[in-house]
Amino acid sequence: MRIGIIGAGQLGRMLALAGYPLGSRFHFLDRSAEAPGAQVGEIVLGAFDDPQRLAELAQQVELITFDVENVPADLLNEIAAQRPFLPPVNALATAQDRLAEKQLFDSLGIATPQWHAVDSLAELETGIGAIGLPAVLKTRRLGYDGRGQMVLREPADIQTAWEKLGSWPLILEQFMPFEREVSIIGARSTGGETVYYPLSENTHQDGILHYCTAPYIDQAMQATAESYLAQLFEKFDYAGVLTIEFFVVDGQLVANEIAPRVHNSGHWTIEGARTSQFENHIRAIRGLPLGSTTPIGHSAMVNFIGQLPPLETVLAIRGAKYHDYGKSPRPLRKLGHCTITTSDAGDRDSSLQRLLQLVHAGS
Amino acid sequence: MRIGIIGAGQLGRMLALAGYPLGSRFHFLDRSAEAPGAQVGEIVLGAFDDPQRLAELAQQVELITFDVENVPADLLNEIAAQRPFLPPVNALATAQDRLAEKQLFDSLGIATPQWHAVDSLAELETGIGAIGLPAVLKTRRLGYDGRGQMVLREPADIQTAWEKLGSWPLILEQFMPFEREVSIIGARSTGGETVYYPLSENTHQDGILHYCTAPYIDQAMQATAESYLAQLFEKFDYAGVLTIEFFVVDGQLVANEIAPRVHNSGHWTIEGARTSQFENHIRAIRGLPLGSTTPIGHSAMVNFIGQLPPLETVLAIRGAKYHDYGKSPRPLRKLGHCTITTSDAGDRDSSLQRLLQLVHAGS
Repeated sequence: MRIGIIGAGQLGRMLALAGYPLGSRFHFLDRSAEAPGAQVGEIVLGAFDDPQRLAELAQQVELITFDVENVPADLLNEIAAQRPFLPPVNALATAQDRLAEKQLFDSLGIATPQWHAVDSLAELETGIGAIGLPAVLKTRRLGYDGRGQMVLREPADIQTAWEKLGSWPLILEQFMPFEREVSIIGARSTGGETVYYPLSENTHQDGILHYCTAPYIDQAMQATAESYLAQLFEKFDYAGVLTIEFFVVDGQLVANEIAPRVHNSGHWTIEGARTSQFENHIRAIRGLPLGSTTPIGHSAMVNFIGQLPPLETVLAIRGAKYHDYGKSPRPLRKLGHCTITTSDAGDRDSSLQRLLQLVHAGS
Repeated sequence: MRIGIIGAGQLGRMLALAGYPLGSRFHFLDRSAEAPGAQVGEIVLGAFDDPQRLAELAQQVELITFDVENVPADLLNEIAAQRPFLPPVNALATAQDRLAEKQLFDSLGIATPQWHAVDSLAELETGIGAIGLPAVLKTRRLGYDGRGQMVLREPADIQTAWEKLGSWPLILEQFMPFEREVSIIGARSTGGETVYYPLSENTHQDGILHYCTAPYIDQAMQATAESYLAQLFEKFDYAGVLTIEFFVVDGQLVANEIAPRVHNSGHWTIEGARTSQFENHIRAIRGLPLGSTTPIGHSAMVNFIGQLPPLETVLAIRGAKYHDYGKSPRPLRKLGHCTITTSDAGDRDSSLQRLLQLVHAGS
C-alpha cells in the first residue's frame, strides 16, 4: 500500500523505515529533496499548504498521514475528502489550537493547568487576576519546542509579554511547579484496537526535549494516563499514534498538551519495545492488528541538537543505538538521537550519563 | 557515507533499512528499478557483470558491498581497485567455488564431508569408489537453494547425474545423514573486532530454507563454530558478516558451506538480537564498533516462498513481525519472512506452529 506523508522530517523518515517491512511504500510532500524522509522515499516537492501539491500527493497514494502538524485544517479536509487521512483532521485541528485543546481537556475531566483565553491586554490582566503569577503566556497556534511562549513572574512582565506576543491569539496558563514531566503514547487502529506504551519521563532543556527514560513505572499514573488517552481515542474516533504530555505535580498528572502523531518521547520504542511507535502508527492507520508495546529492558533516549556527536564514540557506549536523520547541522535543529537499551536500569543510567557527558562536551 | 550494493534483493533492502539510522545512503546495481532494494534507495540499472555499470556504481559511492554472490571475481577485483570492496573479493571467490571452499576447510582443519573433484565420468566413478553411495554430485559454481545438485543413491544414478550435470565442473560429496542443520553468523570489522551470534537451527524444504529457530543452545558446538569462523576471519582478513552452514552428525559440526554475507538464517536477528546482522554488517564494513549480538528471548523465522500469507492473519499471531520484500509472486521465490520473538521458548514454538500451518494452508 502506498502511503503519503505530509512533511519529510525525521518522524516521516522513521515511519517509512518501520513501514517498508509491512509492504508499504512512501511518498512525501516537502520543500526539499534532501529532507530526511525524501532520502528514503519518493518526494513531491512543494509547500505543505500548497493545495495543488497536496492534491498531487493524494493522487499518488491510497492513504495519507503527516509528519508536520501545522497544515491548515481546511486544506486537510479537502484532501481527506479524496483519500483516507489519518489521524483524523479534527484531532489535528484541536492540537493546533491550545484553546481548543484546553477546552477538550476540561470537557473530558482531564486535569490541566488553569487557563484563560487572551485576545487583549485587558483579558491578559483579567487572566492574571484569576490565575495569579507566575503564569505562562502562549500563542494559541504554531508554538512548539518552547517557541511562542513566555513566563510572567511579576507584574512588570505583563507589558513586555504583551509587546512580544500580543499580535497573536493567546492563552494564559497557570505556571506548574512540576516535579517531573512524563508522556503517554498509545495507538488505536481503524478497527478500534488500542495499545499503550509505558510512560516515559522527559527532561527538557531550553524548551526542547533533551532526554527521556522509559519505562517510568508508576501503576496508578499509568492507569490514569491510559484512561485519558482512551477518552481522546473515543472522542476523535481516532486512528494512529496519539501522545499526551503531562506535568507531574504533587504526584498527580496534569495534562500539558497532545500530539496527534508519533512523538519524540517515543523514539526509545524502536529498540526498547517489542513494536515501535512508528510501526504501530502504520499498522493503526492501515487497520492491521497492533503490535506488543511490552518494553525490552530499560531505555533512555538522548536528542542530538545542533550537532551530532561522533558515531564511533557513541556506538562504543554499552547498549547505544544511533539515529542520524540525514540533516545538515544548524543551531537548535534536531539532527538525530541515541537510544540506550540495557537489561538493567543501573547499566542504562550509567550509559546515559556517559552519553550526556559526550553531548555536553560537544556543545 | 554512501554505500554501493551490487544486487538489490531482499538482503540489500534490509541492509539499507538497517544502515539509514547510521547515516549511510544506499546505491544499488540491479536490472530492475522495482527490485526490493531499489524501492528504498538509489538504483543504477544494469547487469551485475556489466563493467561499465559497476564502474558507474563505484563512482557514486565511497564503499561497496554486495547482495548477490555470483559476480565474477575478476570484475570485482577491478572495482575493488577503485573503492573499498568488502567483504574481500577472495572470500567471495572462495565461496563461489565449492572445490576451493572444501580445500579451505581442509587446510584449516574444519570438519567437512569427504569430497572428490569431478571433471569426467571416470573421475565421478573414482570418487564414488572412494566415498561410496549415497553421495551428492554438485556443480562447483552457481548452485544455491538446492539447485545444481543431485543425490546419487545407487549405481544406476551415476549415468543420469552425469547426463544432467556433466557439462559443468563438479564436486562429489559424501552424503551426510545429519540430525539437524545449524549455522553460525558472525561479524568482523575493518578494525579487527569480532562478534558472534548464537547458532540457529535450520529446517530446509526442497533445498530451500523453510524455517529456523534461535538461539540453538549447545555451548560446546557454539565454541567450535565460533573458532571456525574466527579462523576464516583471519584467513581472509575479513570485514563484514560471514556465515557457515553446518550439518550436525553424531553431535559434531560438519561444515557444508560458507556465505560471505548476511544470511537467511540470520533474519531473526532484526527483532531477536540486540543488533541485527544487517546493522552489524554495515558497522563492520564502515569500521565502526560492532553491536551486541545478545538474543532477546526466543525467536523463529519462517520464509514466505512463492506467495505471501495475509498480513492481518500473520500479525495476529503472538510475537509475529512481518517482512514483505516488495516482490511480485513467482513459484519458489522468496517473497518475505516472518519472525516470531517471545520471552518463552514454549510460546515461540506454539506461535511457530500456527505460522507454519498458515503457510502450508496457503501453499
